[in-house]
Amino acid sequence: MKSRPEASGGHGSHTVQRDNKPALTNRISRIEGQVRGVRKMIAEDRYCIDVITQISAIQSALDALALQLMESHLAGCVQHAVHEGSGEVAIAEVIGVMRKLAR
Amino acid sequence: MKSRPEASGGHGSHTVQRDNKPALTNRISRIEGQVRGVRKMIAEDRYCIDVITQISAIQSALDALALQLMESHLAGCVQHAVHEGSGEVAIAEVIGVMRKLAR
Amino acid sequence: MKSRPEASGGHGSHTVQRDNKPALTNRISRIEGQVRGVRKMIAEDRYCIDVITQISAIQSALDALALQLMESHLAGCVQHAVHEGSGEVAIAEVIGVMRKLAR
Amino acid sequence: MKSRPEASGGHGSHTVQRDNKPALTNRISRIEGQVRGVRKMIAEDRYCIDVITQISAIQSALDALALQLMESHLAGCVQHAVHEGSGEVAIAEVIGVMRKLAR
Repeated sequence: MKSRPEASGGHGSHTVQRDNKPALTNRISRIEGQVRGVRKMIAEDRYCIDVITQISAIQSALDALALQLMESHLAGCVQHAVHEGSGEVAIAEVIGVMRKLAR
Repeated sequence: MKSRPEASGGHGSHTVQRDNKPALTNRISRIEGQVRGVRKMIAEDRYCIDVITQISAIQSALDALALQLMESHLAGCVQHAVHEGSGEVAIAEVIGVMRKLAR
Repeated sequence: MKSRPEASGGHGSHTVQRDNKPALTNRISRIEGQVRGVRKMIAEDRYCIDVITQISAIQSALDALALQLMESHLAGCVQHAVHEGSGEVAIAEVIGVMRKLAR
Repeated sequence: MKSRPEASGGHGSHTVQRDNKPALTNRISRIEGQVRGVRKMIAEDRYCIDVITQISAIQSALDALALQLMESHLAGCVQHAVHEGSGEVAIAEVIGVMRKLAR
């Protein structure tokens, strides 16, 4: 696993993420329910177009979750890194993960 | 829920989907595991960038699942509809769901 | 360049595409204008966020263009191929290009 | 047009963007050429699948351009805003444009 930069240790992103934790947990629990719903649709031989429609709803929910995490990360860890003078590294990491989210 | 077109009743996409069912079930089960993994990462205050990286892996897996379903659907239901003379309706439906999958 | 399947020769997708040609030409011309606009914004050192916003508008316009081409292709070439018994090949090709459009 | 935040005035993102200008100009010029190529393909009734493949290549090139602009923006304007104490506003703006780039 990717090593955890100094800047994220015990403050910054972590404080922010902890504040958001109920919202994040709620989002991921709903996504889990949606994925179980798709598994059930496949098991029941439901109409393909309806299954794909559900999958696209899950994609949107995951995008929203990723954006919320990114916002926490920028407001917490990245701001902290900028103050500490290690902003460039934190920004390179953000761009790296944005590249994965793009097509 | 979207009404199920005549063309999908008991043959076409359904036969194909049934053939693929173990593969589809396998894919969605793995995705369920990945989503549970993300829930655990959030619960454990894991580093945001690592969580987002995992979310992007789930997005890719969902894309692959949607494409496999689409392939079954085109090979089954849509081909059948074309033979029956109702291809235009089936194609409009495919484009509608592709629009949801696009950004 | 990718070889052109038999099924697309002189009918099928081509007839359909020709019907749509003014609409397609119109769309791509507008996209060309948008891209020139972005070049001008870069030349004028415009605010990054505004440039990225324009880029996302171009992405949406390209998605719409790709979907319109796909619709023509399904209604023309793919339907024709299905009637001729070579539907599987045409569908594999459609899935291949959908995979490129997905992330 | 979106108002230009104080933080971007004459330094920050602008200095960085100016450093990158040849690279950015080069990228957008190549994209313009690709778009002209697609217009020519449409004019010549080229095979739909080949046109869509070219469109997906343009999408990738635009994503790369957007990421490069975002990197400049984070390294310049956003870092500057963080130092000035207006990081939250700059970050909200970044998330807003990321939402447009997501699906």
